Amino acid sequence: MNDINGDRLLADLRALSDIGGLPNGGIDRLAWSEADLKGRRWFARRIREAGLEAREDSALNVFGRLPEASGPFILTGSHLDSVPNGRRLDGAYGAVAALEVLRTLVEARDPLAERVEIVGFSDEEGVRFSIGLLGSLALCGELPLERLRDARDLDGVRSDEVLVQAGTSLDRLAEAGAHLASLAAFLELHIEQGPRMEAASMDLAVVTGIVGVHRQQFRVIGTQNHAGTTPFALRHDAGRAAARAIAGVEELVQSIDAEAVANVGIVRFYPGGVNVIPGEASFSLEVRHWDERVVRRIVDAFSRRLEETCREEGCNASAELLSWVPPARMDEATMRNLEMACQELGQTAGRLWSGAGHDAAVLSRHVPTGMLFVPSAGGVSHAPAEATDDQHLVLGARALLRAVRVSASRIK
Amino acid sequence: MNDINGDRLLADLRALSDIGGLPNGGIDRLAWSEADLKGRRWFARRIREAGLEAREDSALNVFGRLPEASGPFILTGSHLDSVPNGRRLDGAYGAVAALEVLRTLVEARDPLAERVEIVGFSDEEGVRFSIGLLGSLALCGELPLERLRDARDLDGVRSDEVLVQAGTSLDRLAEAGAHLASLAAFLELHIEQGPRMEAASMDLAVVTGIVGVHRQQFRVIGTQNHAGTTPFALRHDAGRAAARAIAGVEELVQSIDAEAVANVGIVRFYPGGVNVIPGEASFSLEVRHWDERVVRRIVDAFSRRLEETCREEGCNASAELLSWVPPARMDEATMRNLEMACQELGQTAGRLWSGAGHDAAVLSRHVPTGMLFVPSAGGVSHAPAEATDDQHLVLGARALLRAVRVSASRIK
Repeated sequence: MNDINGDRLLADLRALSDIGGLPNGGIDRLAWSEADLKGRRWFARRIREAGLEAREDSALNVFGRLPEASGPFILTGSHLDSVPNGRRLDGAYGAVAALEVLRTLVEARDPLAERVEIVGFSDEEGVRFSIGLLGSLALCGELPLERLRDARDLDGVRSDEVLVQAGTSLDRLAEAGAHLASLAAFLELHIEQGPRMEAASMDLAVVTGIVGVHRQQFRVIGTQNHAGTTPFALRHDAGRAAARAIAGVEELVQSIDAEAVANVGIVRFYPGGVNVIPGEASFSLEVRHWDERVVRRIVDAFSRRLEETCREEGCNASAELLSWVPPARMDEATMRNLEMACQELGQTAGRLWSGAGHDAAVLSRHVPTGMLFVPSAGGVSHAPAEATDDQHLVLGARALLRAVRVSASRIK
Repeated sequence: MNDINGDRLLADLRALSDIGGLPNGGIDRLAWSEADLKGRRWFARRIREAGLEAREDSALNVFGRLPEASGPFILTGSHLDSVPNGRRLDGAYGAVAALEVLRTLVEARDPLAERVEIVGFSDEEGVRFSIGLLGSLALCGELPLERLRDARDLDGVRSDEVLVQAGTSLDRLAEAGAHLASLAAFLELHIEQGPRMEAASMDLAVVTGIVGVHRQQFRVIGTQNHAGTTPFALRHDAGRAAARAIAGVEELVQSIDAEAVANVGIVRFYPGGVNVIPGEASFSLEVRHWDERVVRRIVDAFSRRLEETCREEGCNASAELLSWVPPARMDEATMRNLEMACQELGQTAGRLWSGAGHDAAVLSRHVPTGMLFVPSAGGVSHAPAEATDDQHLVLGARALLRAVRVSASRIK
């Protein structure tokens, strides 16, 4: 039986990592940037070099399949964009491994190759417009068009301008959704991006579900005043109220659910003078858990706590919902299929929920979807120190090949 | 006897408040900004319109005096710059009142007018480069040139670039110090910027001393990581460590001295992504008290507390001293002179220490210096709601006129 060409897989990963490569070893292929588009062109070229047909949809997702194939397809792949100062595996690994899987099937003249399509998704990371998953949302007809229309990137450039410069447009984006009807299932291979597999000595893990991600922006209003002349007792210090709330996030979350996580990644005090009591403070809060009810309880509890703190400090708080991606359950039959593929390789896969969002979360709402993880060294991701050893990268692709074969054989 | 022209004083204050005026009624004349420079040109024009000679030194302090006068002088005035989103009286009141005092002496053909000089100082607030009092420090030959050379403003513009654009330069700044030898005393009229006069029904207060102001910038280093995949137990969250330290500032300060105050006015988390655990956090801490030993105890206790917190969070902290203005005692004879000036008006002045820093703190290290306060409505300052009623504004200027006369008559 033909198997994955490990050297070719690793060489392709290295070749792609040269595109958007930074002097510190990191990668910057911010969605729809010049480097990202160059990465997409590289992926399409490698697809064609394998004798496959490459196609780019209106969201700039890049697809590959046999020229004569007509579906329905098992879709497999991941995203090609990266966070700024990220590394070469997040997303790229699943897309390049998918290409290697289909190449292997084609070389083996496996008739199942006709039932397989591969994909490199657009803007999964969401750094450009603070939305994310836009490639898979476009494919699944779930685009948040209103929000995207109003969005500007970090440099203040309007989303439509970015899209037009990349070769598409806001108005065309929804066309990508026509293809969904041709898909029978989705399989995504990805690095874990966390420390749990390494801690448990797992080589492969089947993902049971993907956490829901709830993002809010809070605004605390107090009274701006002179920091030298206003006694503590007469202050309404928005900065102090915010700091108290932020300082208590971990304890609050852990008291509700030990597996939930939350993050305050952005904070600003206004007007921002060393000698001015902050009249306003703003901060973001992100909450993640695989059970929607737990997310809700944490969000509610934090709001109550913040209100209480604001009452004590003579301030007022308001919240704005930035985004809510509900938790996604992976398909049970597909999970078993993935586990059996691992067993074929003599591996016992663990089961894990994913703390990171993935294109698979979007696809899972439309077709049976499964995900497979390989370990991340030190659990590091979204940073230049992200790494997975070569053996695990090849092992993951070999398991994906087997799972794709079984899934393809089951298409009616 | 000629007296202050209250209407003219109030009209001048209104005219100056049009420069850098904001739609919300606030004022933004950030040091050396276009609005600040416009305010200085306005002040120089009003000086010349009074038949006086206007002079700008290398620090862009604006002086006014009779053309034929040669000193030594009683200097009186305050600063012309404002905090962003401040209001029209902080600083401007003392400068405009000084102009009205000298105008009144000139109109009365009082020979003492020759012994009086007025000033509108530069960058007292210190918002631009987090240093402050730069105009009076330049006049007194105390410029922190090293620190200023390295400073950048909130937009990242280098201090020298700002100065050159404003019409001077770092290299020229020290020239301002030549004038100090011509000064015999300094009198500064200012709004209280705090709630104590109103609470005690004081119409005028003589300042006994000015708090020492200690400013530091703290930097907490943790580990940047993925907020969805990194369990709380494995995080080194620089944002959380900073928030915990900031949340405890009030309790820590109050446990050491009930009259001390402190403020955290600036906070930033890096890299500043909603889904990225902060790998770094920075914040400012300002501590004020009229006893240097109390300031030292608070600063030391906070550093120990922050280190402890960082140890618990797996982070590291470092501190940079931004500035240290020691407490200043006002001159006893000048204080009595100010009290007698108030008595001439049928007023019994209170005595207060000042929680706000003032140019008078710098001048007091070189010449006999005194300060007079009028009340601030609600104790509000550094905010658009800052206010003092017209009667108090005129009363303060009348007391200043009398004190200037007595001080000038005593010059040997």
